[in-house]
Amino acid sequence: MRHCSSRPDRVPGMEQTAFDDPAYRAAAVDLLGVLAYGELTAFERMAEDAKLAPTLNDKAELAALATTEFGHFVQLRDRLVALGVDPMEAMTPFVTPLDAFHDHTAPSDWLEGLVKAYVGDGLANDFYREIASFVDAETRALVLEVFADSGQAEFVVDRVRAAIDEDPKLGGRLALWGRRLVGEALSQAQRIAADRDSLAALLAGSVDRPGLDLAAIGRMLTRLTEAHTARMTALGLQA
Amino acid sequence: MRHCSSRPDRVPGMEQTAFDDPAYRAAAVDLLGVLAYGELTAFERMAEDAKLAPTLNDKAELAALATTEFGHFVQLRDRLVALGVDPMEAMTPFVTPLDAFHDHTAPSDWLEGLVKAYVGDGLANDFYREIASFVDAETRALVLEVFADSGQAEFVVDRVRAAIDEDPKLGGRLALWGRRLVGEALSQAQRIAADRDSLAALLAGSVDRPGLDLAAIGRMLTRLTEAHTARMTALGLQA
Repeated sequence: MRHCSSRPDRVPGMEQTAFDDPAYRAAAVDLLGVLAYGELTAFERMAEDAKLAPTLNDKAELAALATTEFGHFVQLRDRLVALGVDPMEAMTPFVTPLDAFHDHTAPSDWLEGLVKAYVGDGLANDFYREIASFVDAETRALVLEVFADSGQAEFVVDRVRAAIDEDPKLGGRLALWGRRLVGEALSQAQRIAADRDSLAALLAGSVDRPGLDLAAIGRMLTRLTEAHTARMTALGLQA
Repeated sequence: MRHCSSRPDRVPGMEQTAFDDPAYRAAAVDLLGVLAYGELTAFERMAEDAKLAPTLNDKAELAALATTEFGHFVQLRDRLVALGVDPMEAMTPFVTPLDAFHDHTAPSDWLEGLVKAYVGDGLANDFYREIASFVDAETRALVLEVFADSGQAEFVVDRVRAAIDEDPKLGGRLALWGRRLVGEALSQAQRIAADRDSLAALLAGSVDRPGLDLAAIGRMLTRLTEAHTARMTALGLQA
């Protein structure tokens, strides 16, 4: 968000015309589609991972996170409908890569599920907020609202730290797990960027809509990495 | 609710004192506990059954129902907290019978999941609303609000009828499934009534709190059966 003031999509009135550009429209629909399916599938997987909870209280905490994700899905879907787009069609291209991410990162126990909810979703949310600076003001406002950190996942910090205090060996295993989550996320993100020219073009920019140059990409990755490291540290894990 | 006007728990001011009676308090806590765990586990199972959906749209519909159940759980849990009760402790006695119900009625396909969401939850909600007439006004208002029929499950009617239109053989299998759901629900309800004296006493009444006589139980069962039959008929199934 740091370079927003110089971005043409903040020019007043630009919002009304952004969707007249078919390339922009395709990109915005793709973005909303991937975010919506991301939230729907996050709901599903968290609801499933809640089954691993050792106590009813823990189960209820993760289930609450899951329903929050579903609420996000509803907001994104409603935005697609408002744009005259079939949300299910918009989500379809992203089913394979996002399902693959979850299939490759199915937690084998409750703590892995917690780290995934905290670290994986934290990273994804940061990335979505970064992308928000490339879209029209209304879409941006929605994305920023949906992916604002509600602090709801903070219970994870307590649980993971307490578990590591009790059994320090866990720290090593969960740190590896955190790195695997990032690796799988990057691999699927690259797949999506390769498959969806519209999204790649959104970040790369066009004649009248500057995108990220290499230096800006570097700064974005730095911000994402720093926030990820902070989350791992909060959990007592080495990033 | 038909005999409420003659019930002592509608006497003004009774609400303030109902919880002074330890037997009443135990029954109300048990009731809120079983309802809360019922909703938490309904959330879990519907979220899981949503995976069987043939389309993303169907998945989103059942996931929406699941999150509604979770919202109900939150309301019931908050009421337990307001009464100074640990909600997780209140739910614990009901984990085994409710998990057994779900284990015995795990849908083998999407349509069975839909029928379970519509017929099983419909019957449970009706029963909970009947029980509401035996509790203090504040608890009753909460139970009636939580279990009011929001009509959110109506999409099930479309889906099941369309499937039977396409393959009439399904009607017989799903009708059997509906009957099995009722049988399993009754069997676990009896188990709960046998294990939890407080709940049985709530329905049976006490010296200063009349309960159901046999005729009233008969009328209640008639109401429940009629509503169940109406739901089966709405789906195109023989009850």
